[in-house]
Amino acid sequence: MRVETVGVDDLLDRMARRAEAVTRRLDALLPPADGPRGRVIEAMRYSALSGGKRLRPFLAIESAALFGVTPEQALDCAAAIEMVHCYSLIHDDLPAMDDSDLRRGRTTVHKSFDEATAILAGDGLLTEAFAVLADAHCHPDPAVRTALVAGLAAASGAAGMVGGQMIDLSPERAGLDLDGITRLQSLKTGALITFSCESGAILGGADAAARAALQSYARDLGLAFQIVDDLLDSESTPEELGKPTGQDDAAGKATFLGLLGAEAARAKAHDLVKRACAQLEIFAKKAEVLRGTAHFVIERRS
Amino acid sequence: MRVETVGVDDLLDRMARRAEAVTRRLDALLPPADGPRGRVIEAMRYSALSGGKRLRPFLAIESAALFGVTPEQALDCAAAIEMVHCYSLIHDDLPAMDDSDLRRGRTTVHKSFDEATAILAGDGLLTEAFAVLADAHCHPDPAVRTALVAGLAAASGAAGMVGGQMIDLSPERAGLDLDGITRLQSLKTGALITFSCESGAILGGADAAARAALQSYARDLGLAFQIVDDLLDSESTPEELGKPTGQDDAAGKATFLGLLGAEAARAKAHDLVKRACAQLEIFAKKAEVLRGTAHFVIERRS
Repeated sequence: MRVETVGVDDLLDRMARRAEAVTRRLDALLPPADGPRGRVIEAMRYSALSGGKRLRPFLAIESAALFGVTPEQALDCAAAIEMVHCYSLIHDDLPAMDDSDLRRGRTTVHKSFDEATAILAGDGLLTEAFAVLADAHCHPDPAVRTALVAGLAAASGAAGMVGGQMIDLSPERAGLDLDGITRLQSLKTGALITFSCESGAILGGADAAARAALQSYARDLGLAFQIVDDLLDSESTPEELGKPTGQDDAAGKATFLGLLGAEAARAKAHDLVKRACAQLEIFAKKAEVLRGTAHFVIERRS
Repeated sequence: MRVETVGVDDLLDRMARRAEAVTRRLDALLPPADGPRGRVIEAMRYSALSGGKRLRPFLAIESAALFGVTPEQALDCAAAIEMVHCYSLIHDDLPAMDDSDLRRGRTTVHKSFDEATAILAGDGLLTEAFAVLADAHCHPDPAVRTALVAGLAAASGAAGMVGGQMIDLSPERAGLDLDGITRLQSLKTGALITFSCESGAILGGADAAARAALQSYARDLGLAFQIVDDLLDSESTPEELGKPTGQDDAAGKATFLGLLGAEAARAKAHDLVKRACAQLEIFAKKAEVLRGTAHFVIERRS
């Protein structure tokens, strides 16, 4: 079978359009407020409307499209996922965590506002994500909405993203082997990427086989994404990435790059992308955008 | 009509039994985990299993009982609400917020663990609360579960608890008048107390009149609760309360007590409790536990 992917220009154009729609929806879902309470909303908006690739919402929208769900119908779910991603960035950047001053080319929330406001803005975005998923505007069927809430909570909580961040901050972190780092990353970044694809299957009422295929694709993609993150971190300037570089190295943290070396790490990322694309075989030509996305993930420069 | 309330001993006994059941359920919902990820779970358990009055779960269980829902059937929802309460305590106690060392008679989470773990433990509890509500074990009907998720998110987010905490930390805080403090407290503590009662109505499929009655009861009760908090804060030792006292005074924050004086504040709390009880008239004798709870709230010593 010939593997279909979209052209790079088409893909980038599509990603830009989706990102714009997600940003517009986030803008509408997080209206500014007057008075002292307005400050936390302002910080939530500062984070959520700051751009970024919007990869996770894109995966949600394009996964849903496999099942005939329109981008418009997937938009609330996509926005909710991005809210959780933004919350995780705000809290990870805090002085008590990674202590980062720069994110997406701007000062981080605790630098632009203050630490208390940053903690609350993260809390507010996490909470709002569940409000968005529970609202009938997200999907008319409450069974679909609870499945989305359950999936997002599982991906984000102590058995997912929060657990991954805990491992990342642990004394054991420095000495992790390849299996250990794979597990750490599957929790810290992989779980939300996997849920992004899964959410499309939930919105589209996909059968078990289609859902499993998307999960496998997302797992491989998420790992490839992280390996490329390591490579970019070592090969780019903070200006190119819009965030500090070399922090893992400085902290003595084991990385895919450090354990494998650049060449083997790059080869592993390519293998994972190839495998990710193969997972989508049952969708045939319909999955060309997701295949293209997998290639984009390892070819990106930021 | 004669107003029915339960006797104090019966009420305290009932609260103790419910609190025990809630703690047992929290223990089961937050199983310990091995490895470095286990640390955040340990911190979540440290907070959630630390005792406390469990007033919010009690209100949820007893409100649900008005509609024939058994304590067992309301337990997951009650536990989810307590998780959100515990998350809010952990984050409020952080150095960047209220910077408190003592809570429920023990060192706070960031003191017993560290700041990063405390932030993550709060995040984890907030996330887990939504996981619990979305799970079919909470209630068989997904429409009920999404209503609970929506209600808890609204009460906890930037339009509720998070917004209240933002106001509490704002420069405007010191100069708030009585209306301003009432609004602050209705967000910071009132919203979750109100949702606790509302959740019982949602679980029980209550009609609009019953739900509105419970909301009104909870609003009055929440405000009375806060006024008594102010009084206890000024009249008790940290040992009696299990947390620092006099912090609002030290920070120059306006309080009900400061604005009204002790006598008028106490009278206002009594009026609110009387009004709260009157809101329950449509439930007649069935509401005697909730009436007793309102009296307990102003008579408590911690």
